[in-house]
This record gives sequence, C-alpha cells and structure tokens, in this order.
Amino acid sequence: MSTYRIAVLVGSIRRESLNRKLADALVRLAPADFSFHHLRIDNLPLYSQDDEAHPTEAMQRLRREIGEADGLMFVTPEYNRSIPGVLKNAIDHGSRPSGHNAWEGKPAGMIGVSPSACGTALAQQHLRNILAVLDVSTLGQPEAFIGYYDGLFDEEGGIGPASREFLQGWMDRFAAWVRLNAGKTSQSF
Amino acid sequence: MSTYRIAVLVGSIRRESLNRKLADALVRLAPADFSFHHLRIDNLPLYSQDDEAHPTEAMQRLRREIGEADGLMFVTPEYNRSIPGVLKNAIDHGSRPSGHNAWEGKPAGMIGVSPSACGTALAQQHLRNILAVLDVSTLGQPEAFIGYYDGLFDEEGGIGPASREFLQGWMDRFAAWVRLNAGKTSQSF
Amino acid sequence: MSTYRIAVLVGSIRRESLNRKLADALVRLAPADFSFHHLRIDNLPLYSQDDEAHPTEAMQRLRREIGEADGLMFVTPEYNRSIPGVLKNAIDHGSRPSGHNAWEGKPAGMIGVSPSACGTALAQQHLRNILAVLDVSTLGQPEAFIGYYDGLFDEEGGIGPASREFLQGWMDRFAAWVRLNAGKTSQSF
Amino acid sequence: MSTYRIAVLVGSIRRESLNRKLADALVRLAPADFSFHHLRIDNLPLYSQDDEAHPTEAMQRLRREIGEADGLMFVTPEYNRSIPGVLKNAIDHGSRPSGHNAWEGKPAGMIGVSPSACGTALAQQHLRNILAVLDVSTLGQPEAFIGYYDGLFDEEGGIGPASREFLQGWMDRFAAWVRLNAGKTSQSF
Repeated sequence: MSTYRIAVLVGSIRRESLNRKLADALVRLAPADFSFHHLRIDNLPLYSQDDEAHPTEAMQRLRREIGEADGLMFVTPEYNRSIPGVLKNAIDHGSRPSGHNAWEGKPAGMIGVSPSACGTALAQQHLRNILAVLDVSTLGQPEAFIGYYDGLFDEEGGIGPASREFLQGWMDRFAAWVRLNAGKTSQSF
Repeated sequence: MSTYRIAVLVGSIRRESLNRKLADALVRLAPADFSFHHLRIDNLPLYSQDDEAHPTEAMQRLRREIGEADGLMFVTPEYNRSIPGVLKNAIDHGSRPSGHNAWEGKPAGMIGVSPSACGTALAQQHLRNILAVLDVSTLGQPEAFIGYYDGLFDEEGGIGPASREFLQGWMDRFAAWVRLNAGKTSQSF
Repeated sequence: MSTYRIAVLVGSIRRESLNRKLADALVRLAPADFSFHHLRIDNLPLYSQDDEAHPTEAMQRLRREIGEADGLMFVTPEYNRSIPGVLKNAIDHGSRPSGHNAWEGKPAGMIGVSPSACGTALAQQHLRNILAVLDVSTLGQPEAFIGYYDGLFDEEGGIGPASREFLQGWMDRFAAWVRLNAGKTSQSF
Repeated sequence: MSTYRIAVLVGSIRRESLNRKLADALVRLAPADFSFHHLRIDNLPLYSQDDEAHPTEAMQRLRREIGEADGLMFVTPEYNRSIPGVLKNAIDHGSRPSGHNAWEGKPAGMIGVSPSACGTALAQQHLRNILAVLDVSTLGQPEAFIGYYDGLFDEEGGIGPASREFLQGWMDRFAAWVRLNAGKTSQSF
C-alpha cells in the first residue's frame, strides 16, 4: 500500500553513525503510506567526469534509486562546517552527466545530529544551497538541528521521549511536503 | 480578476535601480491573474527589538502588505557578497515580533541583476538561507543570475530580445510555483 | 600608551543588547596596549548610492572611525540565519563609494551570543563571506559561538567564571592576530 | 633555494581539468623562492571515522604532505554550487583524527575557473567557511573568479595575455600572504 517512496541519504558512512540511527528512528514515525530506502554512497568512486561514459554498477544503481524515489530525506552530520565530502560526492554523481540531473524535482527534507547542534546547522546551510540548484525544493520549517544527548534514542532504537513530539512534528510536515510536491518539477508544472 | 497577489521586494533603494527596472519589466511577463505590488522598504527604521511595542506606520504597513500577499518576488543586487543591508532590514522587520513571522508560508522567487552575474548569485546564496528559516519556500530552477548588459531592457522598459525567452520562462515557473504553494504553510499542510 | 585601536561593531542596537554586554565584558580581558571604541550604527540612514555624494555626518563619522582603527571586533547576534540588517547596512556604508572601502586591510575577529549558539554560528558563516571581499582578514580559531546562559556575565558586568578561560583565550588570540596583521593590506604587502 | 613550499589542491580529478591547467600556469608566475607540490586526492578512500586507526598509505601521505607545506593553494571548480565532493573528502581526511588537524595554521589562497565565473565564486564562498574552522587564514583580495574563455592559456600552457596582469597580481599577493602568515597558528602566535 505504500504510495510514497523516500530515498534516505545519510551523510556519514561509519558503522555506528548517529545519523544512520536517527534515520532509522525517524522512519518509525512515518505515515503508513511512506516507505524508506537507504541509498548506498560508500561504494561510489570519487566523482570524475572521465568516468561518466562508463559508469560503475554503484553509480548506475544510485541514479536508478534516486529516479524511483518520490522524495528525499537527508540526514547529515557536519564535517568542517559543511556536509561531509562523502555525501557531496554522492550528490555530484546523482547530478551528472550534464542535463541528466537525477535529483530534479524531488521534494526533500533535511535533518541531522552532531555533538553540538551548531554542527549540523552549519552543514544544512550549505546543503540548502546545493539542493536549490538541483531543483530540489526543501522543507523550510521546522528546521531540525539536533545536538546529541544521552537518551536521544530509546532502548529499541526509536526516538527517546524528550525529542519524540518535536521529531514526530518534523516527520508529519516532511510527509505533507512530499505529498504536496512529489512529481512536480519546475520544468513540468 | 487578479487572483494571485505578489509582493515585490527590490533590494536597492536608489532611484535609478536596475533591479527596480528589472522588477517592472518582469511584471509585464506575468499571467493575467497575477498582480504585483512594490513593498516600500526605504522608510523603515533600522530594526530594533525596542521598537516592536510601538511600531511606526511604515513597519505596520510592511507587515500588513506581506500578510496580504500570496507570494513574494525578491529582485536583488549584491552588496559585499550578500544581500543589501536595506533588504535584510526589511526582512528582519517582517519576521518580528517573535512568533509573528509575516513571511511564513509565502512561496517566493528570487532573481537579480548586478554588473557581474556573480554578484547577485552570491547574494542569492545567502538569501536562500535566510528565507528557509522564515518558512518561505523558494523556487529552485531556473536560477536567474543576470549580469547587466546594454540591451537588457528595451526602449519601453520591457525585457530586451536577448533575455526575453529566458525571463519569460522564469516568470512562467515562478507563477506555477506560487499557484502550487500559495496558502500552504508547513504548520497548516 | 595604547598602540592598537580597535573599532567595535555590535550587531544589535537594542538598549539591553546581550552582544553589547559581551563586547564590554571582552574589553576588560584585553591587553593594556589595546583600546576599544564602539562605532555607532543606529544613526545611519539606509544605504543608498544616491546619498554618496552628500554623506550625512553619521556616515562620515563611521568612515573616519573605521579608518582610524587598527583592527575590528564584530560582536553579533543572528537575525534570520544571517547578520542583522542593521549591521549589514553599516558594513555597506563603510565599503563605499566604490574604490574607497574603509574596511580594507583591517584584521578582524568575530564573536557573538544568541539564545542558542547555533544562531550566531550561522550569522558568522555569512559574515566571514562578507568580510573576505572587503579584504578584512578574519581570525579563524577559536570560533566563538556563545549560547546565552545565566551566569555568562558576573555582577560587575565581566565574563562569568564558566566562560572566562575560553574567552580570555579568544581575546589573546584576537590581540595576536591584530598585532600580526595590522597595517597590512593585500595591496601593500 | 626554495624557502616556501606550497601544497596545491586541485578540486577536479579529471585528466583534462581546466583547474589543473590553471594551477600549472600559475606556478610559472611565482617568485623563485616558492616551490609547488600537487597533493593527490584521487586515491583517497571516502572518509570514514572507522578507518582512522588504520590509515591507508594515501591517507598518510596526504597528511604528511600537508604537514610539510608552508602554505596552500586551492584551485577549484564548482559542482552544484559548492566545492566538489572529491575536494571536500580530501579536506575531511586532512582534518582528522580529532585534535590532529593537519591544515592548522597554513595560510591559503583560493582561485578557480569554471564555465561561468559564478560557479567558482559560489564554490569559494563555501570553501572559505570550511577553511576558517580549520584555522586556515585565507587571502581576501583579490578574489579570483575566472570564467573560462578561449585564450585563457597560451600555447605553452602559461596564462594568456588578457589575464596575465591580473593573475600575476594574484600570485604576488598570495606569495606575500604566505610570507606574512607561514608558521603562525592561532595557537602559537
């Protein structure tokens, strides 16, 4: 019965990534007609235009899975006041070759957790610039800059009680944003 | 018969502002059911929280006219790699007092002209960050970074032939963006 | 005996501004050969190129006081994910007329306090872009994003004990930065 | 007789990279006591904290070569309104592990070429934010946003006549910036 398919992009590829845990916990708060699919970004080569003519399987899969999505959920930490290079690399792959931007017209939400909330805030400020050029319209409010604290996750891997209401609100609005904008590119509407 | 009312914010207040001319020329490309209204920003005081309890007539009028708008058109040059202070000051006024953000949920487009196209590009990069927190969703593509050239405007003050198709395309998508998003805040949808 | 003259720019003009208090408290931590002078920005007109030929007394004074400074200390809150319009307006005035950028070559530090530390962090991210084009070289580390808390200031208006060591460190490096860079513009060195 | 050793980071790894050509052409304009060394970034793994304990040879070499440098020259295109993921990935590697930021205190210049000058301008706006947190002080003026044109390079791979004076000026100031700031971190000065 799922109607809306969401591609999830986690900005960190380490095994115990807090942002991956956050992504997984958020999924549990989603409406029943939403399904979520992690996009692998750790097996992509470093983007080079030279490789466009002969894309690897991982590159093809990334583009295919973006294409199948109705919306995007970015869950990202901050590295050095911007998004991690590994996430930017995936975004670059999805945007190419020129004229074949796979991200185009997909509505997106962005959220993240970092040791201090400022970290993900600064990263998201850059991410919003990046997504705009890709014709990805991003949910404005509520902004979600999460500073990690003990108890953010409960023992089952869900969102702990102190943040549950806020993050349920975020998910509800993200879902509404996707319903409103899915399938509409600025070329087509 | 106008259905969609657009508030126009021009980032420069000098009399011969190229951005004001651009705004006026763009208006001629709009659909018949759109009307455009310049918001005055040159008579606002420098924003101070101390004045919120006793707003001047110009402050009240700004907030009222934002409130009446279905959408926003920002037409801005760049001063020092960001938006002009005079435009930021108007945005600050409209966002206050706390909890009474007049901009909330208004769909927006941004465009601008500067001596080099890079100028308005850099300013728009900041403007997009600013509008996101105000829950103003901004049109992504096409980005419109216009470097001024002789002939941008024709003798009647319209858009000259070399840029007409591009800017008609921008206006068409801006109008579609407003139709899609007008009246929808992230609180309400 | 003061050798280094620092112009202080506070991003908020409200009477009880926390950033003004922070500026005043920081001054007490400065070396003996530094003097600090607040620049008034609340009496400037909204910048318009039309006024450049006939600058008001406040405009002339701002430019004169920038010119006399060996370094700059920006102490700024965040309004809407950027610096306040009132501060940007002052920066715009100081940068003009074209070819007469009064800020050129002044070394600067930036710091600020906001209800959440993320606020000033996001504002400073924009401020750094703005100052770069003005040829103002800015201290990198330590970044100082201060989230206000009860006890940030002590009863005499100094820095409270919990933040004193960090902010003394900030001041020491700011002072060293000014000593290193004062009097050197990229044109002259 | 070389005294100043500059690490060169080119933001694109494609074979015919215009930015690599620009880097090579700039080197010819440098003073005699400067030497330049390209840092390889195309053989780095995608950064993951999990790999920090067992760095690859390429990771170790990157950190070692950054450490040996007196200054940094970033020559970067723009991908999607920011720096390429491949360059950000290298920056992330150099900044880690926590507390062992190899970039710290190295003075830097940034420059780039893209099909439109706005591209590299927008990328550099992000790069400046990123370098600030790493305690890399960046040359402010002259900004160098180069839109590619036929004739930018001459037949010997040097800078063509139309841009030679501007880029010689850039190099002179970059060299002066390195002389002034080399060896000075905000921790030590």
